Amino acid sequence: MSQKGVTPRGEDYSRWYNDLVQLADLADYAPVRGCMVIKPYGYELWENIKNALDIRFKQTGHKNAYFPLFIPMSFLQKEAEHVEGFAPELAVVTHGGGKELEEPLVVRPTSETVIGHSFSQWIQSHRDLPLLINQWANVVRWELRTRLFLRTTEFLWQEGHTAHATAEEAEAETMQMLDIYADFARNEAAIPVIKGRKSNQEKFAGAEASYTIEGMMGNVWALQAGTSHYLGQNFAKAFDIKYRDENNEQEYCYTTSWGLSTRMIGAIIMAHGDDTGLRLPPRLAPIQVVIVPIFKNEEQKGPVLEAAHRIAETLLTVNIRVHVDARDEKPGFKFNDWEMRGVPLRMEIGPRDVESGTVVLARRDRPGKEGKSTAKQDEIRAAVTRTLTEVQSGLLEQATTFRDAHLHEANSLEELKESIDTEGWALLPYDGSAEAEAKIKEETKASSRCFPLEGGDVEEGTKCAITGRPAVGKAYFARAY
Amino acid sequence: MSQKGVTPRGEDYSRWYNDLVQLADLADYAPVRGCMVIKPYGYELWENIKNALDIRFKQTGHKNAYFPLFIPMSFLQKEAEHVEGFAPELAVVTHGGGKELEEPLVVRPTSETVIGHSFSQWIQSHRDLPLLINQWANVVRWELRTRLFLRTTEFLWQEGHTAHATAEEAEAETMQMLDIYADFARNEAAIPVIKGRKSNQEKFAGAEASYTIEGMMGNVWALQAGTSHYLGQNFAKAFDIKYRDENNEQEYCYTTSWGLSTRMIGAIIMAHGDDTGLRLPPRLAPIQVVIVPIFKNEEQKGPVLEAAHRIAETLLTVNIRVHVDARDEKPGFKFNDWEMRGVPLRMEIGPRDVESGTVVLARRDRPGKEGKSTAKQDEIRAAVTRTLTEVQSGLLEQATTFRDAHLHEANSLEELKESIDTEGWALLPYDGSAEAEAKIKEETKASSRCFPLEGGDVEEGTKCAITGRPAVGKAYFARAY
Repeated sequence: MSQKGVTPRGEDYSRWYNDLVQLADLADYAPVRGCMVIKPYGYELWENIKNALDIRFKQTGHKNAYFPLFIPMSFLQKEAEHVEGFAPELAVVTHGGGKELEEPLVVRPTSETVIGHSFSQWIQSHRDLPLLINQWANVVRWELRTRLFLRTTEFLWQEGHTAHATAEEAEAETMQMLDIYADFARNEAAIPVIKGRKSNQEKFAGAEASYTIEGMMGNVWALQAGTSHYLGQNFAKAFDIKYRDENNEQEYCYTTSWGLSTRMIGAIIMAHGDDTGLRLPPRLAPIQVVIVPIFKNEEQKGPVLEAAHRIAETLLTVNIRVHVDARDEKPGFKFNDWEMRGVPLRMEIGPRDVESGTVVLARRDRPGKEGKSTAKQDEIRAAVTRTLTEVQSGLLEQATTFRDAHLHEANSLEELKESIDTEGWALLPYDGSAEAEAKIKEETKASSRCFPLEGGDVEEGTKCAITGRPAVGKAYFARAY
Repeated sequence: MSQKGVTPRGEDYSRWYNDLVQLADLADYAPVRGCMVIKPYGYELWENIKNALDIRFKQTGHKNAYFPLFIPMSFLQKEAEHVEGFAPELAVVTHGGGKELEEPLVVRPTSETVIGHSFSQWIQSHRDLPLLINQWANVVRWELRTRLFLRTTEFLWQEGHTAHATAEEAEAETMQMLDIYADFARNEAAIPVIKGRKSNQEKFAGAEASYTIEGMMGNVWALQAGTSHYLGQNFAKAFDIKYRDENNEQEYCYTTSWGLSTRMIGAIIMAHGDDTGLRLPPRLAPIQVVIVPIFKNEEQKGPVLEAAHRIAETLLTVNIRVHVDARDEKPGFKFNDWEMRGVPLRMEIGPRDVESGTVVLARRDRPGKEGKSTAKQDEIRAAVTRTLTEVQSGLLEQATTFRDAHLHEANSLEELKESIDTEGWALLPYDGSAEAEAKIKEETKASSRCFPLEGGDVEEGTKCAITGRPAVGKAYFARAY
């Protein structure tokens, strides 16, 4: 059943998405074209994403730092592929303090160049390596077609930048961060992403190899939710990032970069949302439990509200993010409102519950009676903790079942077309060429998502299903954001 | 005694400051003029400042959100005083995506305008008030003379923006946030700031009244470390921020804004630092305790390191930020290094300590023997917690004594000159005029800092010590950053 004001997914998925973003109070368009205002509820979700990632970065030895917003145009030009990739998307500052600048400044679209410059000063000897840095920042890419969270001119993200003595160490870092993203997506955002390597056409401008986590959205489109790049010595040579090794010889470093952005919020909306609103994974939800007091008159109101607040206090002691909805509105209105906002667990408490020392719990991941249960007030912390864990794994399970039902193998353009047309992702033996990808895009609007790390290998002699040339592996093709 | 590489404060305060910022690894200049790179140690200090403030904002009902980096030039022009104040400092984006923009975009110097635009959409009824929002962001002001942390083209800050139904509520919010800043400065940064109101010349462009916390630095200069502005209906009228009251009538809101920036790091450096380096208040220090193992040979090394790590583990269980310095360097080198970085407490542990189950604690706020004590290893959590509290209050005490010794009353230009010349702040009956301030600046290079909230009142009939016109209060004058 669809909620008032929400376009059903089946009718218009794109409008459904916009409705949720607006009605759940996550974000709004800014007066500047393509920029967004992240509203408090959306920002709190981002803060929870941030904290969950930040702790993982710090546990693996990374330190946060901050680098400048502005980058001299000449810096971008030092890495040929890099500037070619980003030039069409740049915002350029030409005037400062009332004067025209001698050299235009670019508003960072990503910071490999300016951080590379710092690294070249910070790194002297092999003892300074590895250098493991992360930055939380805003970046700007001038996009023509924008969608809130998915593709905006300005967005928030983290960008990790590391330097290493050897290619092996840099490659291991690239894979470690990909694993961290996948772990985060799976265990915090409840999205069973697929890890894989990007084709040469889709890799980061200036990278040797790009890795991605790809999530399946509710309309079966793919969404790249995080990327990790092995940059080889490309940026080290462009920015002179060198170290003295044990034999006192100068060597270039090997570097990596990896990023995850506010786009993840779009992924969470589309991986879990339904026609009544958001469904937020408990580990990231700004409000994990909403308590709705139910009463018919003033006499009932006092004891019910008292119990609601007492239970909220109890839950706060174990750091459960709880909210008592004491607004002067009907329970039905409140139920709809919190379903729209995707609160994982609703607790209802009325006069009879007060008497019997119980409450009713209603899970957001399961509609109707199936998701309802009764819990004792004096065991409320355990009951809520357990139920939140169930909602978290419930969402992951549903997303995994949905994903697996839409993954297909394809061995020809025909089979690939059929997979895409029946709303699926097709795993196809692929030579990695631009030619094959262009043909597929033309016929199906699908693009290559990645050579999955698991299940992407092909036997010697396997041919690309499009060109007939030797396949380098199997790659997923899907329509994508 | 001065540390190697550090210019003594008495010789050149400004060089001393730069030396500390560089040698303690806090920050560096970026390749773009006037911008900075905040290095990991400096950024961790900022993260601790951020957390201490954020929790205070949330406890008082404020929510974080995020607004766009770019502001249409026309927005700034809607508030006449505002654009006049900021126009000379703007960085302007004229090109995006390879094309010249129809309307140039300003990189936000502050966000009253663009947030005002959102507020006008978010607020409909009196039930939407008060609206209490905070943003953590980067801002850009094109500065001609820059100093790391103190005045940089780009800096990090928080900016609070609130809207209220009445002038009284907005004024109460303005004062509440000023109190929060003062409480933070005093109890976290150990800086006994003076709260006061800015003169009309020094107030925020577009405000009705600006309030400030002013800290005294080690060279007796003043530093404005945070400001809270009562904006009246100025921005509400410029951006049409209206609400329907209980009688269904449209009314303009009253708004406030308040901000604190990475400048606070400069304040901490200069309020506490000495000739051997930083002295960080324990509540904000990235590392609160550094353990330096002391041994002469491999035989001693094992048990000493084992004890060091065991103690570190114990301290971590009570969330003390501890670091074991196991580098292959002499203890003396390590002592100097951690003194430079301002770590509040050093713990020394050698073979004899291992035998006797003790450690030596050395406080950063007290040099030599006076700051040393012995603690038992099996009571280490209590001993370290207690000593950190002592260092925190030790720094506040020293800063308060220093401040009070340099506050003077002055009743004439002559007395004011004498106060300023002997390195003090002068509290002077003042009419608030630009004329008096200009004269004082010309003669002494001092500017008006604030009319202090405590001790700033004058009796009816008191005259300004400069113009002879009626004084509106007593104001502090000092040389200032």
